[in-house]
Amino acid sequence: MYIGIDLGGTNIAGGLVTESGEIIKKMSVPTGRERGSDAVIEDIYRIIEALLEENQAGQSVKGIGIGIPGIADPHTGEVIVCVNLNWYNVPLRAKLSARTNLPIFIDNDATVAGVAEFQVAQKGQYKDAVMLTLGTGVGGGILLDGKAVSGFHGIGSELGHMIIGESLYTCNCGRNGCLETFASSTAIIHYAKHLLETMPDASLMRDTVHDDLTKITGEIIFDAAKAGDVLANQVVDRLVKYLSIGIMNIISTIDPEIVLLGGGISMAGDFLLDKVNIELEKLKYFKASACARVEIATLKNDAGIIGAAMYAMIQH
Amino acid sequence: MYIGIDLGGTNIAGGLVTESGEIIKKMSVPTGRERGSDAVIEDIYRIIEALLEENQAGQSVKGIGIGIPGIADPHTGEVIVCVNLNWYNVPLRAKLSARTNLPIFIDNDATVAGVAEFQVAQKGQYKDAVMLTLGTGVGGGILLDGKAVSGFHGIGSELGHMIIGESLYTCNCGRNGCLETFASSTAIIHYAKHLLETMPDASLMRDTVHDDLTKITGEIIFDAAKAGDVLANQVVDRLVKYLSIGIMNIISTIDPEIVLLGGGISMAGDFLLDKVNIELEKLKYFKASACARVEIATLKNDAGIIGAAMYAMIQH
Repeated sequence: MYIGIDLGGTNIAGGLVTESGEIIKKMSVPTGRERGSDAVIEDIYRIIEALLEENQAGQSVKGIGIGIPGIADPHTGEVIVCVNLNWYNVPLRAKLSARTNLPIFIDNDATVAGVAEFQVAQKGQYKDAVMLTLGTGVGGGILLDGKAVSGFHGIGSELGHMIIGESLYTCNCGRNGCLETFASSTAIIHYAKHLLETMPDASLMRDTVHDDLTKITGEIIFDAAKAGDVLANQVVDRLVKYLSIGIMNIISTIDPEIVLLGGGISMAGDFLLDKVNIELEKLKYFKASACARVEIATLKNDAGIIGAAMYAMIQH
Repeated sequence: MYIGIDLGGTNIAGGLVTESGEIIKKMSVPTGRERGSDAVIEDIYRIIEALLEENQAGQSVKGIGIGIPGIADPHTGEVIVCVNLNWYNVPLRAKLSARTNLPIFIDNDATVAGVAEFQVAQKGQYKDAVMLTLGTGVGGGILLDGKAVSGFHGIGSELGHMIIGESLYTCNCGRNGCLETFASSTAIIHYAKHLLETMPDASLMRDTVHDDLTKITGEIIFDAAKAGDVLANQVVDRLVKYLSIGIMNIISTIDPEIVLLGGGISMAGDFLLDKVNIELEKLKYFKASACARVEIATLKNDAGIIGAAMYAMIQH
């Protein structure tokens, strides 16, 4: 049994999770980040305490995993930065360890979501796997030899910030050319607006939002592309081109057995996957060798809680 | 004691190497690749046999490492492709295993050179390290948790083929934008010629080669840049820009403790390193966090033999 904590900008969610990834009990409180880190850590501790009390199954709790919207030092368990929470150098593990003897493992929420997918949805069958979460941004989770990899300083697996070209706008991180500025919903909405504003062509996307371009969403773009809309397909093709470069760069670096695509954009399913596979085949340079399969991630609910618990289990 | 074999396009070199990376005995024969793989493997076996006979120190040989100019399947030990040798799907490990009971470990020569640097020059002090060999091409070696990483299919650590922008010419691999087309000696010679042919400015580089642009070398470019030549500095600055993007992408993926630069271009030493560190500071996006140091690799001789032996030792 493990405890998983999903520390988000809106809520702190926690759960008591079995070794096969089943949630026995879960609970959640608002984060209330404006209260500062000490009050938030107090609430995390209360959730841990309440979950430990709920654990009457006879199996002892072996560890606590915490997914954070930022980065942590893997050696000290200090949160280096969580922009959303306005946390800088917060000694999260040390503060909790003062009140519980259980080992505590902290990592980025995208890594933790990857672990949920690898360990539960994929049943732990892969030891070398990568998950790309294609949402508002692009998050990465890396599993190598059965362990989650976030690097020596805790700043690895930030796959959304791999620079792969020149993009139309500056990334949140202040640089240009990050994978995230090509392959997130933010990126495709940005590019769709750019095309609709600069090209005179008619487009289903424009019709769907009744000319109010602020209403364009990733779903609207994919629906229009699936219906054959020319501009929407230009947007999707650009996403596919750069996403495939990102995937192939990951393959050229750590060459995993599988790459899983999660997040809102992955809802496009086979329509997206088929295009990515065609592009990857073009980009593959060792034609004679096998390389990673790409699949759509399947775990939808509670990945934050489950992944944090599974993270504690595999890193233990 | 381990045996290291450096299988090159010109020579097969082998050595008996201690666990601290000292060569006790070495030997070399011409590869004679035109004879085909069976004859070359026969010669590799003869070198192994001769080295085993030389081992009179009383310490038993525990394994054999082989560095190849291509890629091998880590599960089967089959050489998938060595373009230089014209080898495709050659069962190297199986053929040698039929004649020796020693465990055999095969990997790419850039990975093996990295292992020599990590284990011997750096005395095994790093468990998470990357080496970039900046020569005619760009090779990569990755060490994570003390093991060399070449990936599930053997096609990882090909860091020279990370796509990071649009380059002036097509890479050997058939694609555009590989790190190798920005940060190898081939790349800077190509760009220097391009500038000299298209810009009317005077340049020390042109003077040095007496207007024969086919004679431009990496060394000539760096010497001119160090002497303050404007065009040569443009060439170096472009190399530094893209090399730094490549390094930062590696950091965003696996976040090693250290990145070592080897190969001919690394001979530029601190002149190169200082510029790279300035550029990396600009590219760093978690300003609050520590990140990998970058240093110049120091092992110069016999890295192929030593690295192959050390590879067998650490992967064993």
